[in-house]
Amino acid sequence: MLTTRVPATPVHPSTGRLRPLGLDEVRITGGFWARRQRTNAAATLPHIAHWLEREGWIGNYDLAAAGTLPEGRRGREFADSEIYKFLEAAAWELGRRPDPALEATFRGFVARVAAAQAPDGYLSTAFGRPGQQPRWSDLVWGHELYCLGHLFQAAVARERTAPGADDGLLGIARRAADLVCEVFGEHGIQSVCGHAEVEVGLAELSRVTGEQRYLRQARLFIERRGHHVLPEPEWGRAYLQDDLPIREATVQRGHAVRANYLAAGAVDVAVETGDAELLATLRRVWDRTIARRTYLTGGQGSHFQDEAFGEDWELPPDRAYSETCASIASIMFSWRLLLATGGGGYADLIERTLFNVVAAAVSREGDRFFYTNTLHRRAPGEMPDPDAPSPRAFSSLRAPWFEVSCCPPNIARTLASLAGFLATIDDGGLQLHQFASCSISTTLPDGAPVAIDVETAYPDNGTVTVRIRESAGRPWTLGLRVPAWARGATLTHRGADGGTTTVAVTGATAQVTAPFAAGDVVELDLPMAPAFLHADPRVDAVRGCVAVQRGPLVYCAELPAGSAEDLDRLVVSTATPPRYADGRVVVSAGWLPAGEAPWPYGGAPDRTPSTAEQVSLIPYHDWGQAGLCTMRVWLPEA
Amino acid sequence: MLTTRVPATPVHPSTGRLRPLGLDEVRITGGFWARRQRTNAAATLPHIAHWLEREGWIGNYDLAAAGTLPEGRRGREFADSEIYKFLEAAAWELGRRPDPALEATFRGFVARVAAAQAPDGYLSTAFGRPGQQPRWSDLVWGHELYCLGHLFQAAVARERTAPGADDGLLGIARRAADLVCEVFGEHGIQSVCGHAEVEVGLAELSRVTGEQRYLRQARLFIERRGHHVLPEPEWGRAYLQDDLPIREATVQRGHAVRANYLAAGAVDVAVETGDAELLATLRRVWDRTIARRTYLTGGQGSHFQDEAFGEDWELPPDRAYSETCASIASIMFSWRLLLATGGGGYADLIERTLFNVVAAAVSREGDRFFYTNTLHRRAPGEMPDPDAPSPRAFSSLRAPWFEVSCCPPNIARTLASLAGFLATIDDGGLQLHQFASCSISTTLPDGAPVAIDVETAYPDNGTVTVRIRESAGRPWTLGLRVPAWARGATLTHRGADGGTTTVAVTGATAQVTAPFAAGDVVELDLPMAPAFLHADPRVDAVRGCVAVQRGPLVYCAELPAGSAEDLDRLVVSTATPPRYADGRVVVSAGWLPAGEAPWPYGGAPDRTPSTAEQVSLIPYHDWGQAGLCTMRVWLPEA
Repeated sequence: MLTTRVPATPVHPSTGRLRPLGLDEVRITGGFWARRQRTNAAATLPHIAHWLEREGWIGNYDLAAAGTLPEGRRGREFADSEIYKFLEAAAWELGRRPDPALEATFRGFVARVAAAQAPDGYLSTAFGRPGQQPRWSDLVWGHELYCLGHLFQAAVARERTAPGADDGLLGIARRAADLVCEVFGEHGIQSVCGHAEVEVGLAELSRVTGEQRYLRQARLFIERRGHHVLPEPEWGRAYLQDDLPIREATVQRGHAVRANYLAAGAVDVAVETGDAELLATLRRVWDRTIARRTYLTGGQGSHFQDEAFGEDWELPPDRAYSETCASIASIMFSWRLLLATGGGGYADLIERTLFNVVAAAVSREGDRFFYTNTLHRRAPGEMPDPDAPSPRAFSSLRAPWFEVSCCPPNIARTLASLAGFLATIDDGGLQLHQFASCSISTTLPDGAPVAIDVETAYPDNGTVTVRIRESAGRPWTLGLRVPAWARGATLTHRGADGGTTTVAVTGATAQVTAPFAAGDVVELDLPMAPAFLHADPRVDAVRGCVAVQRGPLVYCAELPAGSAEDLDRLVVSTATPPRYADGRVVVSAGWLPAGEAPWPYGGAPDRTPSTAEQVSLIPYHDWGQAGLCTMRVWLPEA
Repeated sequence: MLTTRVPATPVHPSTGRLRPLGLDEVRITGGFWARRQRTNAAATLPHIAHWLEREGWIGNYDLAAAGTLPEGRRGREFADSEIYKFLEAAAWELGRRPDPALEATFRGFVARVAAAQAPDGYLSTAFGRPGQQPRWSDLVWGHELYCLGHLFQAAVARERTAPGADDGLLGIARRAADLVCEVFGEHGIQSVCGHAEVEVGLAELSRVTGEQRYLRQARLFIERRGHHVLPEPEWGRAYLQDDLPIREATVQRGHAVRANYLAAGAVDVAVETGDAELLATLRRVWDRTIARRTYLTGGQGSHFQDEAFGEDWELPPDRAYSETCASIASIMFSWRLLLATGGGGYADLIERTLFNVVAAAVSREGDRFFYTNTLHRRAPGEMPDPDAPSPRAFSSLRAPWFEVSCCPPNIARTLASLAGFLATIDDGGLQLHQFASCSISTTLPDGAPVAIDVETAYPDNGTVTVRIRESAGRPWTLGLRVPAWARGATLTHRGADGGTTTVAVTGATAQVTAPFAAGDVVELDLPMAPAFLHADPRVDAVRGCVAVQRGPLVYCAELPAGSAEDLDRLVVSTATPPRYADGRVVVSAGWLPAGEAPWPYGGAPDRTPSTAEQVSLIPYHDWGQAGLCTMRVWLPEA
């Protein structure tokens, strides 16, 4: 009975190397992410609900029910999806802790959505009514299936956190999914949605409901794409990943959110259908994408024009698009590969992305957001309008909402479900993939209960203390990820009986296998000295520059708008190592002289800085919090 | 009588430091640009006419006359403008030499345009008819006034090259311009077109017709823009130069074609209204734009997304948009400033842009085009479809046509009128601004006739020989531009009587003042050794790289698609100077090892090339002529 219980976890494969622990098993109790989760619950979720009402996007469902669409409809064609991502976020949050007000909002939204569903299960406020475009008539840009994918994920989150809840969301999702299978099945429309997402939603819905045809439909969509089944858009077929079949892919390309959602769904399909060849292809795609097309922050997507991956090594910091949603989708992809395969750098990338994109994309107060996450902001831009949706990337300050506002609810669902990405179990024991103060209680596959408490001030410092609260009564293995940057990490096991063993760690996991007793302590110490990093010489855009990282945090230089100095002229000396003090990293730096030639190309320029001083760098996730500013991550070497 | 004659020149200010010589005074007789002009006449113009028919863009006028618009209309909202740019190109070409077939095409097109003009002068195939959007209802994106600006320029070109021709084009333009003045005058619609161009067209039409209200209307448009008179587009008001009044501008920003057309029109208005303050502002804008926002090739516009200028120093070579039309518009802006002020680097930039953007943007055969002119092509892309319009920037090969096909006719009109950009006169004598074999016959302001023959193999070599054919019978000054890159140039005057004077040249102009006699020879020798160039250290994207220039030509490395080597790994040694041989430049270079780390950020990478060899660079304008390839202008230093 216990072993077949479905934990409240964002993804639950029926097979794979590792079994993820859910929100019912892992509770974040303090530190960096606990603060973020509190803000997410207290500020971000109400903020999103407010804007969904204010912009009329949830109101679209009322108009649909009242028969006054399309006249009154507001928002872009994919506005429905923001409702569903909000519902998913709320479901995870309600799974984390009861909240009657949020529960009421959740149920209210679901009821309004339900009222707009057609008798045959069709659900969209943008298509299908008199005066609107017909259903499925614009697969490239219509986003109907994309929206439904998010609906399915919301229903899955609800069912996993409140099984059998009477709100009706799962029924709405099932009816819509049944229609999708009917319309797009083997003998149906032989095409796919321009924006992948329904695949991952269908696969997960299949897991929750046991309905195999949802999985089959997900597989059909995955296999169909790439055969030029969609009209070619202006930016080429790669934009939609319709340029070549997924089994022939060698790297992520095109629109970065689409690419990562598709890849996440493809892992689900590969895992559930036992398709080892597809899984191997996806691992190779991930490897090359990380080696050649990913920013230091973990961000992905180099192009503003098409929100797309660039070519290999094309990673301009000053036009890093690095869309927040692309990073969240990348976490979904990486997490699934980790569960399926048990290792390979996936958890490292998740950590990097969480701390340097997800954490950066929402303000400390939880009510302002970055849509894009550039690594170099040359001009401060303008103060975003607090009362209107903003453009996506025109300021150094976060904005309250966007006309395309996919990112805020995506952040919210990620933070609310974050406990589900921390730890896994396998036959041998428990693995800790991310470091946060938390309390974990679970049952190993053989039925043995295990409980631990994790205490850490990470990423401020590198000590992660695991206290055994309940053990299996037999030897088992506690594994802790050792990030690739953490050379010289040590692991100490202090038995409740007083014995202590310390081992130097090599490799990507630090492990202790022992018949742990309650009171035993395992401590991982990660060296946290800040370091200068260089990029592969093929990353042309940052040649001759260094970045600074300490622990998982990327640092950056920031100057308030109107400063006398100018980040364009900052150079750092790498002769002196960077120094950490009070949350900042200090580097020896100077400023090149101002002034310029009439024509900027000529003889070798003088690169001697006119001054030598100490310059403080702040964590990248903390930039743009204090007012309009300029910022850069990559700093030219003096 | 002679002094008031209007020469056949692309721009003819009523005042200014220099008076441009027209196509009736300057004839290009041989060399680089003569070849380009022959190809333009023999291949490009017929090619454009063919595609205008084939795509139905000229056919739109027939449909308009037949009353079958909007149903049958083809092309984008601004397709009309391509007809007008073609007519302008044809007018200049017919001014260069008679061509009965082209004359017939020209007249045929004009007649079809005429048939579509409304009785009140309104002319557009995209607006104003039942079933179309109303006239002037979409000023941001409708391009109605933009199209008319090109119509006016076509009519001006025709009137200057065939004064009083009975084809009716000038009448069409006048009727349309009258309507514009009525609708958008002081008490009319208080707005502007989203795409500047009508300003320069109105100012020039005013010059040709003497109609002062066209000039007043141009001024109104210039002064109105910048006061937020248009709805804000997604990419911000700067995209349309509607962010701040032109008098407050400090640098070019936003859409690069719009910005340069606007600036060209503003110079015309400043010159014709004696507005020294506006002219000074425009000079400062030009200066900063050249110092901080212009590529080595002269190309402008760093962004794909909005075809726009980037921030200062934001000049990524691998995402250089550098739209062909932006360069042509930049030439228009620079040439007007040169005429108004007599100097200041304008002719240098024109030369750079002509040889490295305009010459690059059209194939040697004249029937394939680049819309964008990147400085680094990382991936070869795909072979453009020979039978369909192409996307704008997805291949290393030029395409026959684009869905937005502004560039081909823009190149055609520039090449056909090129003789009008070579030389000027002032009270003191004659100035040669661009070097091409040509024959010049003109009359100095005091009525003294002057004629010269220029012989040069420029840019293959740096010798420019000017032979006096007819002199003024009194001392006058022959001035030859000395490009800023030409350190150590010399000027020699060999009198017909055998006397020889040689002077070393300092400054931007080499001058001889003499009572020249027929048979005198003045020879300018420009040193043409190739050189490595570095960029200002603030141009982050090319830090640690050099480019190679020889004379006015920028060089590049090119590799055919499928090569074993990879331009991402090429490094050059600057210890050995570049060497010129047979049209190529040879540099000492090597290749970094292949292979990669799983994560591209870490310790300082090994930058030692594994081989040392000689690598040939080709002129940038010649890249992508031989098949799919990769290419780069900026080469990392070993």
